[in-house]
Amino acid sequence: MRYFMDPTGLAIIGASQDFKTINGKILKYLLKHNYQGQIYPVNPKYQEIAGLACYASVEAIPEQVDLALIAVAAARVPGILKDCGTKGIKRAVIFSSGFAEIGGEGKKIQEDIIKVAQEFRMRLIGPNCLGILNTSTGLIASFSASMELDSIKTGPVALVSQSGAVGFMLFNLLQEAGVGVNFVVTTGNEADVTASEGLDYVVENPNTKVILTYLEGLRDGESFKRTAEKAAELGKPIIALKVGNSASGQKAAATHTAALTGSGAAYKSFFDKMGIIQAKDSDDVIDLAQAFVPGKLPEGARIGIVTMSGGVGILLADRCEEWGLQVPQLSQALQEEVSKVIPAFGCAQNPVDVTAQSLNQGEEFKKCLKILLASDELDMLIVAITMATGKLAEKIGQDIAEAALDTDKPLVVSWSVGQVAKPGFDVLIDAGIPLYHSPARAAKVMGALYQYANFKREWKTIIAEEINLDRQAKIQCALRESGKALSEHATKELLELYGLPVTKEYVTKSVEEAIEIAEKMGYPVVMKIDSPDILHKTEAGGVAVNISSAKHVEVKFNEIMEKARAYNPQAKVNGILIQEQVPSGVEAIIGLQRDPVLGTQIMFGLGGIFVEVLKDVVLKPTPLSREDAIEVLNEIKGAALLNGVRGRQAVDKKALVEILLGVSQLAVEAGEDLLSLDINPVTVLPQGQGAKILDGVLVSSRVKK
Amino acid sequence: MRYFMDPTGLAIIGASQDFKTINGKILKYLLKHNYQGQIYPVNPKYQEIAGLACYASVEAIPEQVDLALIAVAAARVPGILKDCGTKGIKRAVIFSSGFAEIGGEGKKIQEDIIKVAQEFRMRLIGPNCLGILNTSTGLIASFSASMELDSIKTGPVALVSQSGAVGFMLFNLLQEAGVGVNFVVTTGNEADVTASEGLDYVVENPNTKVILTYLEGLRDGESFKRTAEKAAELGKPIIALKVGNSASGQKAAATHTAALTGSGAAYKSFFDKMGIIQAKDSDDVIDLAQAFVPGKLPEGARIGIVTMSGGVGILLADRCEEWGLQVPQLSQALQEEVSKVIPAFGCAQNPVDVTAQSLNQGEEFKKCLKILLASDELDMLIVAITMATGKLAEKIGQDIAEAALDTDKPLVVSWSVGQVAKPGFDVLIDAGIPLYHSPARAAKVMGALYQYANFKREWKTIIAEEINLDRQAKIQCALRESGKALSEHATKELLELYGLPVTKEYVTKSVEEAIEIAEKMGYPVVMKIDSPDILHKTEAGGVAVNISSAKHVEVKFNEIMEKARAYNPQAKVNGILIQEQVPSGVEAIIGLQRDPVLGTQIMFGLGGIFVEVLKDVVLKPTPLSREDAIEVLNEIKGAALLNGVRGRQAVDKKALVEILLGVSQLAVEAGEDLLSLDINPVTVLPQGQGAKILDGVLVSSRVKK
Repeated sequence: MRYFMDPTGLAIIGASQDFKTINGKILKYLLKHNYQGQIYPVNPKYQEIAGLACYASVEAIPEQVDLALIAVAAARVPGILKDCGTKGIKRAVIFSSGFAEIGGEGKKIQEDIIKVAQEFRMRLIGPNCLGILNTSTGLIASFSASMELDSIKTGPVALVSQSGAVGFMLFNLLQEAGVGVNFVVTTGNEADVTASEGLDYVVENPNTKVILTYLEGLRDGESFKRTAEKAAELGKPIIALKVGNSASGQKAAATHTAALTGSGAAYKSFFDKMGIIQAKDSDDVIDLAQAFVPGKLPEGARIGIVTMSGGVGILLADRCEEWGLQVPQLSQALQEEVSKVIPAFGCAQNPVDVTAQSLNQGEEFKKCLKILLASDELDMLIVAITMATGKLAEKIGQDIAEAALDTDKPLVVSWSVGQVAKPGFDVLIDAGIPLYHSPARAAKVMGALYQYANFKREWKTIIAEEINLDRQAKIQCALRESGKALSEHATKELLELYGLPVTKEYVTKSVEEAIEIAEKMGYPVVMKIDSPDILHKTEAGGVAVNISSAKHVEVKFNEIMEKARAYNPQAKVNGILIQEQVPSGVEAIIGLQRDPVLGTQIMFGLGGIFVEVLKDVVLKPTPLSREDAIEVLNEIKGAALLNGVRGRQAVDKKALVEILLGVSQLAVEAGEDLLSLDINPVTVLPQGQGAKILDGVLVSSRVKK
Repeated sequence: MRYFMDPTGLAIIGASQDFKTINGKILKYLLKHNYQGQIYPVNPKYQEIAGLACYASVEAIPEQVDLALIAVAAARVPGILKDCGTKGIKRAVIFSSGFAEIGGEGKKIQEDIIKVAQEFRMRLIGPNCLGILNTSTGLIASFSASMELDSIKTGPVALVSQSGAVGFMLFNLLQEAGVGVNFVVTTGNEADVTASEGLDYVVENPNTKVILTYLEGLRDGESFKRTAEKAAELGKPIIALKVGNSASGQKAAATHTAALTGSGAAYKSFFDKMGIIQAKDSDDVIDLAQAFVPGKLPEGARIGIVTMSGGVGILLADRCEEWGLQVPQLSQALQEEVSKVIPAFGCAQNPVDVTAQSLNQGEEFKKCLKILLASDELDMLIVAITMATGKLAEKIGQDIAEAALDTDKPLVVSWSVGQVAKPGFDVLIDAGIPLYHSPARAAKVMGALYQYANFKREWKTIIAEEINLDRQAKIQCALRESGKALSEHATKELLELYGLPVTKEYVTKSVEEAIEIAEKMGYPVVMKIDSPDILHKTEAGGVAVNISSAKHVEVKFNEIMEKARAYNPQAKVNGILIQEQVPSGVEAIIGLQRDPVLGTQIMFGLGGIFVEVLKDVVLKPTPLSREDAIEVLNEIKGAALLNGVRGRQAVDKKALVEILLGVSQLAVEAGEDLLSLDINPVTVLPQGQGAKILDGVLVSSRVKK
């Protein structure tokens, strides 16, 4: 990526003298924003453009060129790439549309350019992108109209977008909000370079403090994960606007690019685990970027609200609580201190109402802010201003800026009026104080700062337990050999390798042996058909419970066998499973699901109505740490049921945690051979009595059709 | 209110020549905005202010005066009001602070002014308010700095706020967004005129089309309800920013004003019932006002999205679906029609990607919009623009405006770039096209238009069943006489009056009679203590189930009596209840809770974990229509349980609906004598088998301490 973002010399293929054309604009913006490197326009029509020597072909350029910018018709791109390759250019940004996104012929041309790139070991950004920026060197390699800005503010924010239009829309909004941006990378069709690679570059760059990204779908979950881990390690927040979560959004995403779009829930849990802050709108992205740039995080959830209007104070308190923040009552001592610097009809509680009057008067407002910021009763502060104009607005801005620059606690401003207060806005923007024109937006960013602070404090790379190679070989072979779903008994044999508490059970094909096993096990027992071809055992009449005598075993044995044959005459039947009958307890479901991009996620939910009616499940990427596993149990809505409610006993949560960890380790060792695992149900017994896995099915990813 | 909003002459008490003082500003703004009525400044210090004759006292004014504007120190207000009363002035707006909001002495002064007002039959707005506006007559009775605007845009939006600062903050933001406002009423401490009265005035005014209100708490729920019904009848949407829902918000509300703040859930159900659109932020208020001003509502949920960026299209589709809208695929025929006016690499599906290029080209973009608006496949349209500057932005604005003015379908614009696109923004604002600078905000308003359209279509005043006077007398007398909670049996006798299916049961004090009753009823039976002083019967050892023989009845009779005496020796014991034992079914809970402001609300939930662990309950104001009752059953999260899941039978929903309607009628007839009713549980049997109320307790509002 370094050669893309910091090239020694760059060639503009088809450069034009007409600064209204796309090729002309690329050159125009590089010149306008004082690109510091060498530019080589390439166009046989001209000798010179804007004072620069123009070359008839790439070959004709006498110097070394690191980067080619290509914005010609799609059909011409493969040929041009070859020329570039021959010249030894190793990087190209392809702006042109008409590739995979239109399907058919376009898709073929995209395959062609990938081949050329591979041949010359050349890396490509695009096609169908809007280019890249490195604002500190003036590398403005884009024809977006955003570049019409008189000057571009550089700064610690980097932006990587799979959509060019969205990327430069966000760039423009950031500039408007006074947020400096160092890098922009738009990856378009991602014929080669992916958003993850772009992210990795900007995360590692020492000048980047905050990373923004617009994503439709990832192609390389593992590499994205490593980048996110790097960002977490460095304490650099990533704010992601991931689209395509809704049914029609997914449809639109599929039309728009060829990207794989995982399901919304899987992405959410994937992002949550890595502390990625999820935006739902362009407003969110800009608001959050502003809030994270100062690099101040709260040490706790306690927020102070300073307002000149009681009404706005209440509104802010409402919204802050929705984000999990606390608006604590101030101590008597602190209230007394505050009272000295606010009018008598103000309010020294939290929200602190300084009244419109005090803003006017000398040092008092600033003193009030400083008292609150210095107190150990608050972790962060929102200052809410309503009406103020001209000089007064300017003074308010200065007072706030001075207090904010003097503290390590986050301070943001909610200032909800129009341009009458512009002098105040300007002071705040210049000082880099996050400024929002609505209370809810100020509350939202504080909630995000708080959550990210928690993530950062608790974050550590989860090292999966060491892999047991012997066990890994067994599970991978079993999955590969089966090439489909494993039978209940085969699944449980593998679960047992991970120390998971499966029911005591034996498979037999003989009635006599069945009786012998049951007698030894003790009645009552459960009997089930065991076949990899009959997954819906109940439907097939293949399950009998409460079997209480030898006679009973015999009758059911024959009955189940007959029904199974009737249900699926072709089914391979391993025999009948004789299984201990477990006393009733709380039923839970534990599953694994492997997403080709995001990896394997573990699912947990309570059985019965909780899963089926209320969809009350939690999803987490594997591997799980012990803390994760405990969190999983607490995150379901019905969590109280595990702790015992309405006179019921608390269940053995420790046993559940161990099962989750074992399943997580299984996911790690099985790797790509696993498609899914369903443990349904596991019966959790009262505290100290453990849990039993009653049924389960492992499915191989190598499904034979 | 008419004399407030359209006075013949108005007096400014303590008017000042110094236009920087509060009193000076009031006069300044009236002059600046060309107030059309007569102004009488009152101040013994001056002969004349700004060319107007100034009077030494109110009495000295020679003409009739309808309205006094008072912004003097609180302590002087009672005296001035008396002068006004003597002069025959019937209306006063009191801006001054230092009344009930500061407690103590201030509270006393507020009581004084209420007395003066009553004496002279004078109506008051305030104190502690920021005044009122009637922009069409230039009645700018406020000293808010918002009035510094060069001109004020009048229009169909009215604003009523309990907070002056929030009211004028919203006013300023509306003006900034180009939304014309006709009335502003800020009610402050509401010593007399309430927000409901203000709302009633603006709702009735023929020039008002959209009503905005900021509320901390209502004092007069009934009058608010009548106003909301009037608005629904007239099809005028009310957008409410109700604050004080969170724990700390409620604390702040209590500090800020003396208003009663009901619980968030009760307000939500109250507003939902009356189609009041609930805003959570100042942004929401402005966004929704813009969307409702054109007066166009969608006829269905189908939204079209036109975009120049695939990415923004996906983002919009995601957000629209979250608001319950559908983003349908267009028919083949419509796609073909659209294809003709967009470039080949565009997308004619929905979202329709017209690409950045087509916007540039003549009539095609406008044609595309017109085709989509004319089609019967879509009910509304979002047009999403990203980057466009200068002349192009202006053309895009014109194209959109032309298409929007030519349709009855709602059309809003999401245009997410900065001031580079200002020429386009200006065109849209001038044309009154709702314009948002983020996709999520555009989607949100479309969701609100759709929901309001549904409300308007389905709205009708719910006429409670006719009151049965005889029954009403019985329940009111029972509640008044008890003065506390009624016993289970007494409660059930009253429930029976409403045709509610209570268990067959008898109370007796004799063991012999108990046996006789049980034998007649048939075993098994349930036995319970019956006492208005023992509400927690199980805790008191006062419940026995599965009683299966005469001997069993005798043993339990004595046991329950003994335990009850031990539990509460003072308890008045009516006897032992012998009750039919109902087979098991789905357990539900039905309750009534009367809020002194919002009226009586009915609560419904499923029993056990649903209520206790998942808090899965629905609240609705009484009276309920049959449609409401059905909705209640469908709105709980566990609704599927009533329909039968996992092989269970569907329950008798019809029986539940009848119970809800009966309870609703009981609420109407009991009126203010009722504090609460708890029916817990009602056992709902399979379809066709009805339901039985197993236990219940009515509580009188006249609780004797």
